[in-house]
Amino acid sequence: MNHVPLNIVIVGGVAGGMSAATRLRRLDEHARITVLERGEHVSFANCGLPYHLSDAIPDRERLLLHTPESLAARFRLDVRTRHEVTAIDREARRVTVTDQRSGQVHVLPYDKLILSPGAAPILPPLPGVPLAFPLRTLPDLDRLKAAAKTRGPNAVVIGAGFIGLEVAENLREAGKAVTLVEAAPQVLPPLDPELAVLVQRELERHGVTVISGVGFSAITEQSVTLADGRVLPADLVALAVGVRPEDTLARQAGLDVAGRGGILVNGQLQTSDPDIYAVGDAALVRDALGNVAFVPLAWGANRQGRLVADHIAGRDVSFGGHPATAIAKVFGLTAASTGLNERQVRALGLTPAVVHTHPGSHAGYYPGAEPIHLKLVFDARTGRIYGAQAVGGQGTDKRIDVLATALHAGLSAEDLADLPLAYAPPYSSAKDPVNMLGYVAQNVMDGLTRTRQWHEVAGTHRLVVDVREPAEYARGSIPGAVNVPLNDLRSRLDELREQPVLVYCQVGQRGHAAARLLTELGVDAVNLDGGFLTWQAGRAVPTRLPVPG
Amino acid sequence: MNHVPLNIVIVGGVAGGMSAATRLRRLDEHARITVLERGEHVSFANCGLPYHLSDAIPDRERLLLHTPESLAARFRLDVRTRHEVTAIDREARRVTVTDQRSGQVHVLPYDKLILSPGAAPILPPLPGVPLAFPLRTLPDLDRLKAAAKTRGPNAVVIGAGFIGLEVAENLREAGKAVTLVEAAPQVLPPLDPELAVLVQRELERHGVTVISGVGFSAITEQSVTLADGRVLPADLVALAVGVRPEDTLARQAGLDVAGRGGILVNGQLQTSDPDIYAVGDAALVRDALGNVAFVPLAWGANRQGRLVADHIAGRDVSFGGHPATAIAKVFGLTAASTGLNERQVRALGLTPAVVHTHPGSHAGYYPGAEPIHLKLVFDARTGRIYGAQAVGGQGTDKRIDVLATALHAGLSAEDLADLPLAYAPPYSSAKDPVNMLGYVAQNVMDGLTRTRQWHEVAGTHRLVVDVREPAEYARGSIPGAVNVPLNDLRSRLDELREQPVLVYCQVGQRGHAAARLLTELGVDAVNLDGGFLTWQAGRAVPTRLPVPG
Repeated sequence: MNHVPLNIVIVGGVAGGMSAATRLRRLDEHARITVLERGEHVSFANCGLPYHLSDAIPDRERLLLHTPESLAARFRLDVRTRHEVTAIDREARRVTVTDQRSGQVHVLPYDKLILSPGAAPILPPLPGVPLAFPLRTLPDLDRLKAAAKTRGPNAVVIGAGFIGLEVAENLREAGKAVTLVEAAPQVLPPLDPELAVLVQRELERHGVTVISGVGFSAITEQSVTLADGRVLPADLVALAVGVRPEDTLARQAGLDVAGRGGILVNGQLQTSDPDIYAVGDAALVRDALGNVAFVPLAWGANRQGRLVADHIAGRDVSFGGHPATAIAKVFGLTAASTGLNERQVRALGLTPAVVHTHPGSHAGYYPGAEPIHLKLVFDARTGRIYGAQAVGGQGTDKRIDVLATALHAGLSAEDLADLPLAYAPPYSSAKDPVNMLGYVAQNVMDGLTRTRQWHEVAGTHRLVVDVREPAEYARGSIPGAVNVPLNDLRSRLDELREQPVLVYCQVGQRGHAAARLLTELGVDAVNLDGGFLTWQAGRAVPTRLPVPG
Repeated sequence: MNHVPLNIVIVGGVAGGMSAATRLRRLDEHARITVLERGEHVSFANCGLPYHLSDAIPDRERLLLHTPESLAARFRLDVRTRHEVTAIDREARRVTVTDQRSGQVHVLPYDKLILSPGAAPILPPLPGVPLAFPLRTLPDLDRLKAAAKTRGPNAVVIGAGFIGLEVAENLREAGKAVTLVEAAPQVLPPLDPELAVLVQRELERHGVTVISGVGFSAITEQSVTLADGRVLPADLVALAVGVRPEDTLARQAGLDVAGRGGILVNGQLQTSDPDIYAVGDAALVRDALGNVAFVPLAWGANRQGRLVADHIAGRDVSFGGHPATAIAKVFGLTAASTGLNERQVRALGLTPAVVHTHPGSHAGYYPGAEPIHLKLVFDARTGRIYGAQAVGGQGTDKRIDVLATALHAGLSAEDLADLPLAYAPPYSSAKDPVNMLGYVAQNVMDGLTRTRQWHEVAGTHRLVVDVREPAEYARGSIPGAVNVPLNDLRSRLDELREQPVLVYCQVGQRGHAAARLLTELGVDAVNLDGGFLTWQAGRAVPTRLPVPG
């Protein structure tokens, strides 16, 4: 109490920076806390920006959670907007600041410095890019919204990641003719392709034109030219091809940064200078496997900001490896993932086991159940969960959050069967979809049923047997498949005895029963994981996509 | 394969029994599996029954998930309904069965016997009880629904547990004038009283009359007489005062049963006779603290049935302690709990720490957020989570499932802050409500803020300070509280210096900032946990309720 007050300077006044500032004040009423923000606003809801485009959030002011005045009144913070830090003198422990309004340059000393500069939109060095609209700040939003109001109907959104999708949806809801362009072969690259096609279908169902697998080469005031020469009419171009960590200041100050960008920090979020912390998008973190990763998500920024405040106040903290968990609403669907997808796991040289399921959000006999498409990626030997993905209706977010919790807690794929989840007909089934993932994973781990994936059907040397009912088979089946309904398998066993078979049903469950039955009766049988639904989704995956395996 | 097929007899063909039977068939095509069910139906959706009363589930046949015929065709099960097992000859390993249709008695041998007889409704020995309708089976449902159609408008539901509430809601939705009678001082006894009053309010808002704290003494064709002499008009009485484990058969066979009822089993779900298993409501389980408990919920029955099949097939299984997780829809609200409530923890002689929060289901600036009321019960020293409760709108089920997963995984209250949950504005906040529970619990564990509970305000010797804005204060406050808005605390410090204070705000968050600020400035300050909202809910708790502490 009688010490000289601690002098803390924070660079960046959104998410991580503001989380650190307010927590610091609650821990230490005497500290001097200065927040320097280059932009015009602090503590705004950047994740909410896309929704003001369609007026889903009608009131722009609601996106401003705090002002410098309100932060001064409540937390006695010295918040200065349009103040840019241009240099750090680590020796003298002071920063050089430019007041962008007055042009004045001054110097501020610090005891502890917290860097929370965020990420900057990637602007490819192509003709016309300055004509396109990024969406990171409120002024960005104002410009994009004004353009949407005054210009013609054709909008092109470049980039189909989470933010690109949200922008596309909200421009569409605002009445635009929207074309979504993605250089990767699929929308929503955090998902594996057979789940991403479900998202693409939803976009198209709502009138968004999706062009994937091709980049753009130029933007003009009326058009976007694609790398393959196609020209799209465009009264408006929104650009969301990704972000890069804002590490310039750290780099210039000689702090350790990664070659691909991003400030390196330890478990206490300290940079290579222990008096300088870094949080949020600019700082690299560790993923669920302990690898250094760039995870520009709000959850981590807020968590890290708080932990830095705790550490400065002398508390023990540790920010370990976390599965990245992301989610987006895409019209009537929810798309979400936690941890690593199959592609990422394979890129690490690992061969994961995979399970697809298609449960209803709740008991089928209670009205309003919506399908959820789930994918679990795990190690078949140890049960270690690498990650999970979900696309579907209500309750999709719940299943991903339960899976993120299980993954974070170190539970195995088998343990998912054991989770005591809440059941009543409006909410779930007596075996929750997450429990079912665990049951199916167990069967794979035990070798009880050998499975094949959707991309392994073509070229199989097995007799393909559709065990659904004739009416289901008639509505569409895998080419070459013969139809022997599950209930007839025992009586028609002679037809199947002679050769190895691959059985499938709609979602994989009857196929499992069929494969078990046949195996017990001496037939060499495997089951198609995820059934006809996963195969059908996989068939819609562009062929130029590298198939796993 | 060349062994004599295993001969398995299962007593009871719903949930646990049927889960065991179908899994067994998938594991062993050759076993002889006989399911003996006393009732008229097997594998029906007993959790769905109440919803047919209001035609929320219009089609009764949808509640029949399987018939003996469909189970024979798919799983080659020998399913016999209206077959009652009346005795077990453990020595000879055979059961005596009565075919209720023909009256014939015969004997069936078994290698392994699985008891899944379920639970029976408790029928208090009071006059007129046979006139009341229980709701456990489809015939029960048919009788109750027929009576609801033909009789007058006044319905009395006795018992306000999960099933009683569902019956009350659905009779109300069917147009009845419903009175709900509960002998305990509150509805929904699995919840602590300050959360239960929120459920009661929702019932009353939808026109259900709630009478708690008084039992009934008699039922006639026109009325229910309460223990206090009041007479309620009743054209129809539904009885849901609880269930008891069906352990008669096990008891007569000399198997170990608990004094209070329920079959005792080991971690492999074997009774004291290793060739006889017991699953579902009839079997006692271990709760999150490892204590033997009666948990009549569908989740456990299904889980146990599967594990028994695995064990009989020679696999390693273990059913350990699980937090009981339960949920119910109550009109527009969801009420749910996992693990133990405060009352149960105190009954064990422990003194738990308690945290109440009132977050929105998602970011406040995105439309449609609904309040959720959360309570976390934990050990302040170790962080061990005893249980959690939630009452609120959308997303309530998600938070309970995440908490159940964390509790099952052995995470501490502090660990909740660290869960990497999915965030986008339509789904959550950057600090999810479960993360916030963790943050608040941390502050309690660290001693950063000392808190008081809603029932500790009356009789406090502290100055009570309302730190909300004047407009909030004007709409209602704690009697005797002075209003000093949080932002004015620093300038009005002199008013507060002289005595210990208790601060509060609407939900506890500004109160925490205020308590921190005052403590840092040398004032003896404590914060009211859960703020005005929890205090207000607590004030509605009937005074005859024993207050914790």
